Amino acid sequence: MTKIPVAILGATGIVGQRFVQLLQNHPWFEITALVASERSAGRTYREACNWVLEGDPPDELLDQIVQPLKPDLPARLVFSALPSPIAREAEPLFAEAGYAVCSNASAFRKDPDVPVIIPEVNGDHIKMVEWQTAKRGWKGLIVTSPNCTTTGAVMPLKPLDQAFNITRFFATSIQAISGAGYPGLAFIDMSDNLIPYINGEEEKIETESLLLLGKVTAQERIPASMKISAQANRGPIQHGHTVCLSIEFEKKPSVEEAIEVLKNYRGPEIAWDLPSAPPRPIIVRSEPDRPQPRRDRDTQNGMVATVGRVRPCPIFDLKLVSVIHNAIRGAAGGSVLNAELLVSGGYIS
Amino acid sequence: MTKIPVAILGATGIVGQRFVQLLQNHPWFEITALVASERSAGRTYREACNWVLEGDPPDELLDQIVQPLKPDLPARLVFSALPSPIAREAEPLFAEAGYAVCSNASAFRKDPDVPVIIPEVNGDHIKMVEWQTAKRGWKGLIVTSPNCTTTGAVMPLKPLDQAFNITRFFATSIQAISGAGYPGLAFIDMSDNLIPYINGEEEKIETESLLLLGKVTAQERIPASMKISAQANRGPIQHGHTVCLSIEFEKKPSVEEAIEVLKNYRGPEIAWDLPSAPPRPIIVRSEPDRPQPRRDRDTQNGMVATVGRVRPCPIFDLKLVSVIHNAIRGAAGGSVLNAELLVSGGYIS
Amino acid sequence: MTKIPVAILGATGIVGQRFVQLLQNHPWFEITALVASERSAGRTYREACNWVLEGDPPDELLDQIVQPLKPDLPARLVFSALPSPIAREAEPLFAEAGYAVCSNASAFRKDPDVPVIIPEVNGDHIKMVEWQTAKRGWKGLIVTSPNCTTTGAVMPLKPLDQAFNITRFFATSIQAISGAGYPGLAFIDMSDNLIPYINGEEEKIETESLLLLGKVTAQERIPASMKISAQANRGPIQHGHTVCLSIEFEKKPSVEEAIEVLKNYRGPEIAWDLPSAPPRPIIVRSEPDRPQPRRDRDTQNGMVATVGRVRPCPIFDLKLVSVIHNAIRGAAGGSVLNAELLVSGGYIS
Amino acid sequence: MTKIPVAILGATGIVGQRFVQLLQNHPWFEITALVASERSAGRTYREACNWVLEGDPPDELLDQIVQPLKPDLPARLVFSALPSPIAREAEPLFAEAGYAVCSNASAFRKDPDVPVIIPEVNGDHIKMVEWQTAKRGWKGLIVTSPNCTTTGAVMPLKPLDQAFNITRFFATSIQAISGAGYPGLAFIDMSDNLIPYINGEEEKIETESLLLLGKVTAQERIPASMKISAQANRGPIQHGHTVCLSIEFEKKPSVEEAIEVLKNYRGPEIAWDLPSAPPRPIIVRSEPDRPQPRRDRDTQNGMVATVGRVRPCPIFDLKLVSVIHNAIRGAAGGSVLNAELLVSGGYIS
Repeated sequence: MTKIPVAILGATGIVGQRFVQLLQNHPWFEITALVASERSAGRTYREACNWVLEGDPPDELLDQIVQPLKPDLPARLVFSALPSPIAREAEPLFAEAGYAVCSNASAFRKDPDVPVIIPEVNGDHIKMVEWQTAKRGWKGLIVTSPNCTTTGAVMPLKPLDQAFNITRFFATSIQAISGAGYPGLAFIDMSDNLIPYINGEEEKIETESLLLLGKVTAQERIPASMKISAQANRGPIQHGHTVCLSIEFEKKPSVEEAIEVLKNYRGPEIAWDLPSAPPRPIIVRSEPDRPQPRRDRDTQNGMVATVGRVRPCPIFDLKLVSVIHNAIRGAAGGSVLNAELLVSGGYIS
Repeated sequence: MTKIPVAILGATGIVGQRFVQLLQNHPWFEITALVASERSAGRTYREACNWVLEGDPPDELLDQIVQPLKPDLPARLVFSALPSPIAREAEPLFAEAGYAVCSNASAFRKDPDVPVIIPEVNGDHIKMVEWQTAKRGWKGLIVTSPNCTTTGAVMPLKPLDQAFNITRFFATSIQAISGAGYPGLAFIDMSDNLIPYINGEEEKIETESLLLLGKVTAQERIPASMKISAQANRGPIQHGHTVCLSIEFEKKPSVEEAIEVLKNYRGPEIAWDLPSAPPRPIIVRSEPDRPQPRRDRDTQNGMVATVGRVRPCPIFDLKLVSVIHNAIRGAAGGSVLNAELLVSGGYIS
Repeated sequence: MTKIPVAILGATGIVGQRFVQLLQNHPWFEITALVASERSAGRTYREACNWVLEGDPPDELLDQIVQPLKPDLPARLVFSALPSPIAREAEPLFAEAGYAVCSNASAFRKDPDVPVIIPEVNGDHIKMVEWQTAKRGWKGLIVTSPNCTTTGAVMPLKPLDQAFNITRFFATSIQAISGAGYPGLAFIDMSDNLIPYINGEEEKIETESLLLLGKVTAQERIPASMKISAQANRGPIQHGHTVCLSIEFEKKPSVEEAIEVLKNYRGPEIAWDLPSAPPRPIIVRSEPDRPQPRRDRDTQNGMVATVGRVRPCPIFDLKLVSVIHNAIRGAAGGSVLNAELLVSGGYIS
Repeated sequence: MTKIPVAILGATGIVGQRFVQLLQNHPWFEITALVASERSAGRTYREACNWVLEGDPPDELLDQIVQPLKPDLPARLVFSALPSPIAREAEPLFAEAGYAVCSNASAFRKDPDVPVIIPEVNGDHIKMVEWQTAKRGWKGLIVTSPNCTTTGAVMPLKPLDQAFNITRFFATSIQAISGAGYPGLAFIDMSDNLIPYINGEEEKIETESLLLLGKVTAQERIPASMKISAQANRGPIQHGHTVCLSIEFEKKPSVEEAIEVLKNYRGPEIAWDLPSAPPRPIIVRSEPDRPQPRRDRDTQNGMVATVGRVRPCPIFDLKLVSVIHNAIRGAAGGSVLNAELLVSGGYIS
């Protein structure tokens, strides 16, 4: 199969760099354009990019000329790592011009005709793009991936909701630094410290979870209706968000039943054989002190949610802890998986 | 006033070192004996103690000979920083022999005639020592201070409960390393990481809170009856425990009403003028990103609870965050305050 | 004595905040003006300053209006925490207008008529201001304090040089984050890492050390002539610079002789009784694993150099390690001490 | 080719775990025995091993029964991650019994007939095993790999010495935590801190470097004769030792000449095609702020030395900085490479 040419919008930033890293040797996609702001456009990627991830950028991209943010790229699909205010303006221009936009930005997540997708959770929402293109008259489309912490919460919540109907949940997160972009927080502020606040994060968890756990009918997306309360904290951790969940169900599962459901979950069939998908989206650990961000974030190339401490809750029904790699599954990797879903579903030819 | 001679049991450990530090220049107490295990007894404090706190031990203690753990010390009051299994055996011997034992150990916290006290929360529980001595036939007594995280949760919960009747609360903690004793966790395990488990901690929060928020009648201690669910995490922070609380009330307060109650709280009158007590036990910060352990732990010599982010909760009524210095207010400092309460209440003459 | 009114230039930055902290309750000085950039001027200090140090700014300064950077302040002495390019323009205007400027900036450190001073090392260089004012026709004056790492190296080198004539030394530093200003390095760059480069630092150590160890005659400053090679590293440490020194002497001291000289050193008599000066400027620790930045930086209010591991060097004569609190002794505290030297020496009336 | 059966002595410790990790899918070796102390022997690896590295141990080893430390293992070659006192007793028993022992312990590094080898530096020293077996009457042999910091220093020093004759060098290290074994240093001691002392480390750097840079004639090993002075520090870094070097040469190279020599170095031909050897053992970076442990330690699977900041030294001739992955190239990976050298050289059939 000839690879699909793809572009990265915001290719010099920290999420853009992750896209570059994850798309190296991808079986279906090939990077043909690196796009960044005016300041960087026209320079080589080597010059324009202050690479902050481990290792070095791929040799073959070093001399590519960074392109300006205009919808005339030699690509069929674009990954957007743009800041939300810029995404809000640019992404529709790309969709209109015929590109499939897989966005990591929050700009359009709440629009009623823009799907926010984790393939194993709600891959079937992909059909929303049919209304989207019909309504907006676009030749292309926009698909978004959710906020990183929401991803870490919703991956284990989905199978539990499907099996036992969640009525309410509390989510308290301890989030890694790389989720704050680059340069993000200063060492002097974050070291030996915890910051009990992340701008907009709690609201994102409380609203995006409902979209992801909702249903899509022929004509509309019906958000789920459980009640959610979130508390978001930033901690001195490089990568890996932890979410502590307390969950109330309509049908009360035992701890063992919950673990079985989590372990065996595969998600909608449409998401089963995507190249970046792990064999099972959720790994359940039985040690009392797992999951831990440093030890579990890289499992299965950072694409799973690792869950542990499933136990009864004295107020609700169950408590558990989930860890995901915020920069991979919770950001660039999630969008790559969405792109694979688009291809697999025939939305990109 | 002649100072009261006091001993420190477990004086070479990290909590014992805090007692040494906090009792330097104390207006009422004077350290007359340093007690440690067989291994250390007979050596000077200089030799026996691997001082791990900032600075150095006080010069005047360096050449004191460390005493064995026997109730024949030149002291009227003893501070216990013993490990719980040892405390369980040793503390009653000291109480029987006439010493007032202010314990930081968990050994006796659940005994129905042993008060667990935060003076500003339930200083009036001190009268339990009257039954205790009557029932046990002791010439001395045992008073305990609660678990460090419980302290950080209960300090703000008490005024709120008093004003609005708490029916349920969730508490998720991110706890500092110094709470794990010395050497505690390895750098290689804790750095760039979060550990979602602390042995026994959640159970302590769930049970000790009820004791602290309970009532003491003429004959018995009646624990409070709210429902509590706790999740405890260990994070890469030197000192300062953070607790994220979600609280349900019988009488629904507004955010402003809750803040007023927190700010103005002084606790029972018996705790007002103790030398180590801060002017107000709770400080409410209005910045969106406070309290933070590194910035707030040392406020008022580490003896206050700093509270922030008081806001509505989509599930319960209010959410807020509390930070305390676990090693001071949550451990040695709490026990020193209990000792001051004993003196002030006439239980030590 | 009526206190001398002083202003802080650059009062909202991290070094400016240290000046505010150190001048609280100072016996000789009283802050009468807080000066910052155009952006901050006109606002209260509470509004203009993002306080990043522990605790809070002093209550009495919170409502002071921040002044613009113009030499018409109600002060006789100004402490400069300005960035060097701004200091280069502003400090002479203040000196010309009659203010005594105690600068922490590097702008004028190399000027042949501007003393760079550590009172206990070369307090006698203060007389250079006499030429300075004569030559420049200023009513005021400029005195500078050296680079923080240079301070940590030179404090122990001075007594050794005086006693044994240093001919060459290597200095390898591991420097704390707070030396990089605010926000300084990103957590994502500095955590779990070492950065073997600090712009301009090695050259500062190699040149400023010669000035500090040099002599001042009636007409000129004669730099010392030893050879110096420096390597500067940045490490994940909040405060406290470590310098590893290897020293060659003309007269070969034994380890014991060197330790004696270090311990007993007091510096020029002019520096003996300054209020911020510690009893002895150098503390020598005998434990094999000291000095350590976290354990030793706060000794004597952060105003001493703590030295340890004095031992033979297989190539030169001696090796040793020195730690100072970069933000106190190495920055604001050093300038406060210089101001005290000016007062004590009669240069400010 | 049938794989050579190998055993790991000390397989449950942190270096033993690295051996397990590095030998997974090794083209020449297959783990057939995991050996540990009495306490662990007889249990499965799953039960006996507290895995502290990232990820999990290989599935196929989880149920292997851990063997006691006796020379009757189904293996031809053993990797020793034993503590030195135990290595001193056990390794000769294995060598005598016919095993080729590739040791990471320091026990025999100084013995005149035991080679201490970095293949690209002194792979030709392997012939020392001929005298060794002749003299000791062993059917097997012992080869050692050097101390981790020594490895990081000597890898770039070798080509420079070969080309320009080193006469003296200073080495100041900042070493990662994983070099201290498990649990190693406590978080409370190491966080926000630097410890300027590692027991025995400076002496190892000063002596082992001479062995590695020495020559082996037909009858004896002649250590190099340059003078060396080392200062070793421990810093809050997970993996990756940094060494700051100042070097004096007989023939003075320019910076460019030195860089050329470093870049082009391949080492003795005997080390060229070993499966774990990187294409070039030294990578020279041109950025002013590299090498950095977190960014460079994993380059080429952690098997290279990354060098940067090659620049003139005001006292000696050149300064430079070297970083290696202490746990891979500086420990288990170095021993695996030595084993490959033994196979390639025909010492194991």
